[in-house]
Amino acid sequence: MDLVGGPLTTPPNSWIPVPPGSGFGLDHLPFGAGSVDGGRPHVVVAIGDHVLDLDAVRKAGHIDLPKAATRDSLDAVLPILPAVREKVARLLTEPSLQRPLAGAVRPVAEIDLRLPFGVADYVDFYSSLVHATNVGRLFRPDGDALPVAWKHLPIAYHGRSGTVAVSGTPVTRPEGQFTTGGTVDFGPTRKLDFELEVGAVIGRPAQGPVPISAALGHVAGLVLLNDWSARDIQAWEYQPLGPFAGKSFATTISPWVVPLEALTPFERPAPSQDPAPLPHLQPAGPTWSIDLTAEINGTPVTKVSFADLYWTVAQQIAHLTANGATLRTGDLLGSGTISGPGPDGHGSLLEMTRDGTRPITVGDAERSWVEDGDTVTLRGAASDGVHHIEFGRCTATVRPAPGGTP
Amino acid sequence: MDLVGGPLTTPPNSWIPVPPGSGFGLDHLPFGAGSVDGGRPHVVVAIGDHVLDLDAVRKAGHIDLPKAATRDSLDAVLPILPAVREKVARLLTEPSLQRPLAGAVRPVAEIDLRLPFGVADYVDFYSSLVHATNVGRLFRPDGDALPVAWKHLPIAYHGRSGTVAVSGTPVTRPEGQFTTGGTVDFGPTRKLDFELEVGAVIGRPAQGPVPISAALGHVAGLVLLNDWSARDIQAWEYQPLGPFAGKSFATTISPWVVPLEALTPFERPAPSQDPAPLPHLQPAGPTWSIDLTAEINGTPVTKVSFADLYWTVAQQIAHLTANGATLRTGDLLGSGTISGPGPDGHGSLLEMTRDGTRPITVGDAERSWVEDGDTVTLRGAASDGVHHIEFGRCTATVRPAPGGTP
Repeated sequence: MDLVGGPLTTPPNSWIPVPPGSGFGLDHLPFGAGSVDGGRPHVVVAIGDHVLDLDAVRKAGHIDLPKAATRDSLDAVLPILPAVREKVARLLTEPSLQRPLAGAVRPVAEIDLRLPFGVADYVDFYSSLVHATNVGRLFRPDGDALPVAWKHLPIAYHGRSGTVAVSGTPVTRPEGQFTTGGTVDFGPTRKLDFELEVGAVIGRPAQGPVPISAALGHVAGLVLLNDWSARDIQAWEYQPLGPFAGKSFATTISPWVVPLEALTPFERPAPSQDPAPLPHLQPAGPTWSIDLTAEINGTPVTKVSFADLYWTVAQQIAHLTANGATLRTGDLLGSGTISGPGPDGHGSLLEMTRDGTRPITVGDAERSWVEDGDTVTLRGAASDGVHHIEFGRCTATVRPAPGGTP
Repeated sequence: MDLVGGPLTTPPNSWIPVPPGSGFGLDHLPFGAGSVDGGRPHVVVAIGDHVLDLDAVRKAGHIDLPKAATRDSLDAVLPILPAVREKVARLLTEPSLQRPLAGAVRPVAEIDLRLPFGVADYVDFYSSLVHATNVGRLFRPDGDALPVAWKHLPIAYHGRSGTVAVSGTPVTRPEGQFTTGGTVDFGPTRKLDFELEVGAVIGRPAQGPVPISAALGHVAGLVLLNDWSARDIQAWEYQPLGPFAGKSFATTISPWVVPLEALTPFERPAPSQDPAPLPHLQPAGPTWSIDLTAEINGTPVTKVSFADLYWTVAQQIAHLTANGATLRTGDLLGSGTISGPGPDGHGSLLEMTRDGTRPITVGDAERSWVEDGDTVTLRGAASDGVHHIEFGRCTATVRPAPGGTP
């Protein structure tokens, strides 16, 4: 019985009811880490408006995992996520288990979702051609918009793993250095921005190089990712070693790791690439048609697709490991800001407002940058005639800097 | 009884003998993680030509630590390293313990030293004025040698934690992209380099911002660090997000965490800084007079001092956390390549050979870059009339790339 991915026409029923259009049906089954009572989180799987608590399932003797694997985080589950997901699908479609597993079912609203996995290395790519071109024009108006190597390799930098936080965690406006009219200044950033991204989460570890054909076998799933940025701090510091304090204060990810297998129905061919990449970056592998939006205080400001990216996840992994670098379980690979061709296709305020010079309308207000008290929410969903999966929200509200509002 | 740091004139005796000039006396007591029999490492403290196995000391009931704290790595010890070190000093000067703890003493030569701690975030600074100036001239001959922000903040980037390895681990020559006469190429790097650095290891965690006056209280100790670099890969990729695949293949650290307290006798005032840094980066705090050398195949090629650095460790931490970023136990802060004013004061081959154009003599051979089979060894030591401490070796031998020697 193939419950997982693939071209199902009629998904079987789960004994936990799934409301129509839920986006969390049997064809999805994303994994997270949630606490029921404020205590240690358990590994949980979303189904409809509920979660299945895998720690309770294990205690009831219905899944063969060590105790440590169903507690605290997904760290021990990520390397074997496809197999565990398939097992969960079997449990949920076995009606005789409804009674014995009743205690393992909780309304998702009662769950305090935590950071789903320990972030090993966090790499942020720069894989959107539209975004890289837009940023190049703004940051380097007198130079070439696109860095010379951009179309030859998926450019990336390492970010700060220690400040990756789960959706719902407030973001404090960072303080830092920037220049104001030629003077070097220190204070709360005046240019707080979001970046609409998707992160790939490594499951099975590997010693590099990983051949591109094997790359996606190491990806457990995807999350939404907001790579918060302080543009004034970033602009002052980034030469020649790249972004640091302008990014390292906070990165928000959504709580559900969307299994790669759930995305099979939404696979699309990768965009064509010219010039053709070098052999180790070919074939590019698939991309996925995932609709992504960003909202400020509930007002949508961005609408793009994951398929707008130029470089694929497989290419990112092949590049990242070509030098022999290891992949560890919990490595997080941000796509980079995703901007698309449409008029609302800007994945950051930097691009939307042309570096703050053309404020946008957000509900009844104007915004050049994110203000204190603002809530930024990313959403993702993929749909075809049969399948519909939701990524869940990636949201955070901005608190004033320790030194007050700028 | 103050055994730790401070102006001792006659260090007391340990019942484990310390040969004269050992560099591992009672005034040092560096911590590492070592395996005796190929099994799980224990926390060990170096003394003379021996180590004290803290797991055995705990089992014998002479140190009050949980079992997990004396096994695998220093992770649980780092936040309380000064107190544990003081306790070890007391044990080693209590003659009545020589017999009961005899089983906890092993010759260091029998110990397989492992990565001493789990590397949380690895940040590499760029804090040597001489190095930054040298590199700027080579990489950007037509621009200003020093980036515009360089004297205003300690520039840094995040490196790859997952490829930090302990001394003795071979380094495989990385493959990657670079340009050859205008053509984009892929293969083993032709410009493999070392970087002579010192890394600060975070012990006590913190939520940023950390005031500069409190910064060193979060540092457990120092290690030697070789930030291996592939200059051709780095030159091609580094705009605009900084170094990535040119660095992420390997970083070697020495096995002993040298406690900050052991360095007290070698404290020196920080170098003067002009322009004066902004208030949050003042006062700079001390630096340490540590003699550092690099050798290729046993031939010394570099001689510098840690005190040659422009930015201090306290300033690095104040900058790193000013935006609210957390410090985690096991965070590793590389100094950046240390170059000094002397004729042999180049911390990398890039500088010594002017980007490979002026080979240096190494024993009977010439070297423009590190070749397959070469062994690069960093050493560090600090001495005054009374105290002499050795950092131990940070060494690695280069293996050919999977695709063969270039």
